[in-house]
Amino acid sequence: MTAPVLEETYGDKIKARREHIKMDRAAFAAALGKPTQDIEALEENKGAPLTLDTLTAIAGVLGTSLAELTPEFVSDLDDGVSYQLPQDNPIIKGLRAGTNYYTYHCLVRTRTVPKLVPLLLEVNVDDPDAAAFNVGHDAHEVIYCMEGDIHFKWGDPANPREVILPQGSSFYISPGVPHTLTTTKGSGPGKVISINF
Amino acid sequence: MTAPVLEETYGDKIKARREHIKMDRAAFAAALGKPTQDIEALEENKGAPLTLDTLTAIAGVLGTSLAELTPEFVSDLDDGVSYQLPQDNPIIKGLRAGTNYYTYHCLVRTRTVPKLVPLLLEVNVDDPDAAAFNVGHDAHEVIYCMEGDIHFKWGDPANPREVILPQGSSFYISPGVPHTLTTTKGSGPGKVISINF
Amino acid sequence: MTAPVLEETYGDKIKARREHIKMDRAAFAAALGKPTQDIEALEENKGAPLTLDTLTAIAGVLGTSLAELTPEFVSDLDDGVSYQLPQDNPIIKGLRAGTNYYTYHCLVRTRTVPKLVPLLLEVNVDDPDAAAFNVGHDAHEVIYCMEGDIHFKWGDPANPREVILPQGSSFYISPGVPHTLTTTKGSGPGKVISINF
Amino acid sequence: MTAPVLEETYGDKIKARREHIKMDRAAFAAALGKPTQDIEALEENKGAPLTLDTLTAIAGVLGTSLAELTPEFVSDLDDGVSYQLPQDNPIIKGLRAGTNYYTYHCLVRTRTVPKLVPLLLEVNVDDPDAAAFNVGHDAHEVIYCMEGDIHFKWGDPANPREVILPQGSSFYISPGVPHTLTTTKGSGPGKVISINF
Repeated sequence: MTAPVLEETYGDKIKARREHIKMDRAAFAAALGKPTQDIEALEENKGAPLTLDTLTAIAGVLGTSLAELTPEFVSDLDDGVSYQLPQDNPIIKGLRAGTNYYTYHCLVRTRTVPKLVPLLLEVNVDDPDAAAFNVGHDAHEVIYCMEGDIHFKWGDPANPREVILPQGSSFYISPGVPHTLTTTKGSGPGKVISINF
Repeated sequence: MTAPVLEETYGDKIKARREHIKMDRAAFAAALGKPTQDIEALEENKGAPLTLDTLTAIAGVLGTSLAELTPEFVSDLDDGVSYQLPQDNPIIKGLRAGTNYYTYHCLVRTRTVPKLVPLLLEVNVDDPDAAAFNVGHDAHEVIYCMEGDIHFKWGDPANPREVILPQGSSFYISPGVPHTLTTTKGSGPGKVISINF
Repeated sequence: MTAPVLEETYGDKIKARREHIKMDRAAFAAALGKPTQDIEALEENKGAPLTLDTLTAIAGVLGTSLAELTPEFVSDLDDGVSYQLPQDNPIIKGLRAGTNYYTYHCLVRTRTVPKLVPLLLEVNVDDPDAAAFNVGHDAHEVIYCMEGDIHFKWGDPANPREVILPQGSSFYISPGVPHTLTTTKGSGPGKVISINF
Repeated sequence: MTAPVLEETYGDKIKARREHIKMDRAAFAAALGKPTQDIEALEENKGAPLTLDTLTAIAGVLGTSLAELTPEFVSDLDDGVSYQLPQDNPIIKGLRAGTNYYTYHCLVRTRTVPKLVPLLLEVNVDDPDAAAFNVGHDAHEVIYCMEGDIHFKWGDPANPREVILPQGSSFYISPGVPHTLTTTKGSGPGKVISINF
């Protein structure tokens, strides 16, 4: 597996931040407890490899977050597009309460939109009384019911809202709302397309 | 059809902005060319209905945008969720180059996430040589190939990239990238789920 | 006073939104309870002036917010810059607890950055025991102490944090934190530069 | 100098991301070319220290950016406030074209708002013909003229816009606009408050 390529170097990011806050190399070096020539090497991407500990200390001295000092990756898109053939979908068993609750087929993703997580989800349990909630997640979710009649529950697991959504229905779930899917009682498994973004 | 309910009044928004920039009512009234008691009525949501022209003038005087002075709607969600049954999907013919190119089945939407536009799209043309491009749009798009073999083209319409994506494939298209779908030559119609966000 | 110029028309914004959600004019007209030719006139900026009530109803039908349908203003900047001479600073009395607590000199503003509200603030009360709190506000604030010794209090008004900040000091206040300024006991008035953003 | 404290661990962030994209530990380990027990140790913050190279590879496998995997720092604010006494202002010489063009007094900063860089700036050159431009920067800037008459130039250095701004004036400069300050010809040095945000 090959690591992604960075758009800029850490040295460039660090130097730009230092100059933006009008700090000179001598003051930066003193605050870090390093000789000035080490700073020069750092900003020119020479010398010893940068460690996470050093980067954390640098972010502290430069009064910024780690995220602001980390470079972006070069895009993984192909003229603005990414696609994935069905045989390349990773398939994951989603266990809940000891059963194979969902089977996840992971669809296309791209580093340029990390929040986008599209899934084809097999709903394996056909008993709403055996529904097992998640705790909600930090993403919007929209679902299309592709096969089977979905029994959807949401909100407080102890006292949930619920609705039956036949094939062809669609629904939206806000970030942070606990929810769960089964199919209707005894109706066999179902399939939905679930897009998290 | 019932208009959505506003979370705040225009008067509240205008008053809050005026106070934030430390402008008093007399100066505000003078800049608008209105008597001070009209401003009082405006901020207390009495008097004549606000017109768009007046709101535009007010935004100018208060040095802000129209959007910053318009109240939010009360959420249309039901405990954080919205759903739509298949019989309620609006169905629209998408004409391109004189043919019924796509048929759109409009899935669930919510005012709280206006950029989310999920569609079930019937791909009616099975001839890649008859592909008709859009000009791209200002939204991310992710597509799941539900039925049929999709012939997908993107980029410069005069010299496009292209790939055949069988049922079960998925793909992502960046904002602004022109693209078009047909099915493969002579294979009949197809269906995809398309989520714009 | 002249109203600011819009970058786009309401008609353009409404048409773009309608097309983005794949709604045709007939369906839009039916949902609004208007004849289709009125919609055509609306989108082409002909016919009767748009009212706020109609715009609200339209936003409801198109499943979006009012803000998303309101056009931006043309920039009020002059090659990216705006400046204001001292004689053009509006001067406002800021009354608190019945006294002329602050005097605000309102500095340069621009519609392109509505949150930016820079002020020269005369601190008129030189008695920390007479300090009157605000309730915090929805903006970052940074202050430079230009004249006099500032007695700064923040947090819970019933049990505040406090510090004396001599001329040349500077401080930052997070959004939502209640705070107040006087000068030190009996030291006469002071002046600060306060930038809200 | 003490490094800032992290709000979460890298292990927590990595685990949350892996679970969000429905990848199991075995698949994650295989993609990284490591034994599964190393992944377990990593996510539980045991074992060998994380290096930047490993973090980059992990971000690649998890289809996200480095910034999304780096934890936030614990706030450096004191009940929502930060202040700095004048004797603690770092003072930096800003050389341009071989002269001591500006002297920067660096005012209060906070890691929670890294873009905020407030400065007291001594303008040392009193000859507009010797004005030396910067290339613009990626921040909004607002300036208050505290002492002296400022000669402000902006835009294309070969053919700049210019204006004289006496004490008490204020101005705003958009991100990316090249600009420079001197005082008026032969008038001695000046001082401004410059807030970048």
